[in-house]
Amino acid sequence: MPGNKPNIDRIFHALGDPTRRIIIERLSRGPTSVTHLAAPLAITLAAVVQHLQILEKSGLVHTEKSGRVRTCRIEPTGLSMAEKWIADRKSTWERRFDRLGQLLAEENQ
Amino acid sequence: MPGNKPNIDRIFHALGDPTRRIIIERLSRGPTSVTHLAAPLAITLAAVVQHLQILEKSGLVHTEKSGRVRTCRIEPTGLSMAEKWIADRKSTWERRFDRLGQLLAEENQ
Repeated sequence: MPGNKPNIDRIFHALGDPTRRIIIERLSRGPTSVTHLAAPLAITLAAVVQHLQILEKSGLVHTEKSGRVRTCRIEPTGLSMAEKWIADRKSTWERRFDRLGQLLAEENQ
Repeated sequence: MPGNKPNIDRIFHALGDPTRRIIIERLSRGPTSVTHLAAPLAITLAAVVQHLQILEKSGLVHTEKSGRVRTCRIEPTGLSMAEKWIADRKSTWERRFDRLGQLLAEENQ
């Protein structure tokens, strides 16, 4: 089954929920089944499945069913897309400060 | 007026909207007034103000009124908080792959 293409709107939206961030934290340590994922979370299995669907649609997580077990793993391209968006903004911001610094230095010469 | 403390839930939620990301992109190039910010956006000034309120509450943007003009600027600690959260997950993920690589190398020896 092909994974969902990462979507930046959905990625940031998905990361805005603390339970979904806990799921991503857990999956960053390695793949696991939905049941194992749900065990430490104080919510129903149905709620976990709903969060996983949102994470899967965003392209942050990939799940695959084998027999009766659905295994979840992180989809690193999704996190990379979000990281790149932020890094690009910070880079513009920092270049601006470098230019301001240069202008100030020139004025003080 | 003190800025809003960055809040990771609100930061990711705020970044999940394309108009709000355009606002952040614009502000990463330097501070500007609400009116200038709204000009290229095909939405009402009231809608821009609503988006700015969400961005301000998340701690991504700071606005300040001086006379009749409200100036908006980026609050870099907000973006840094989101960047750090993602980088920490990627780091866990990459360490896991390093360990897997080591195990495979040892098995092949």
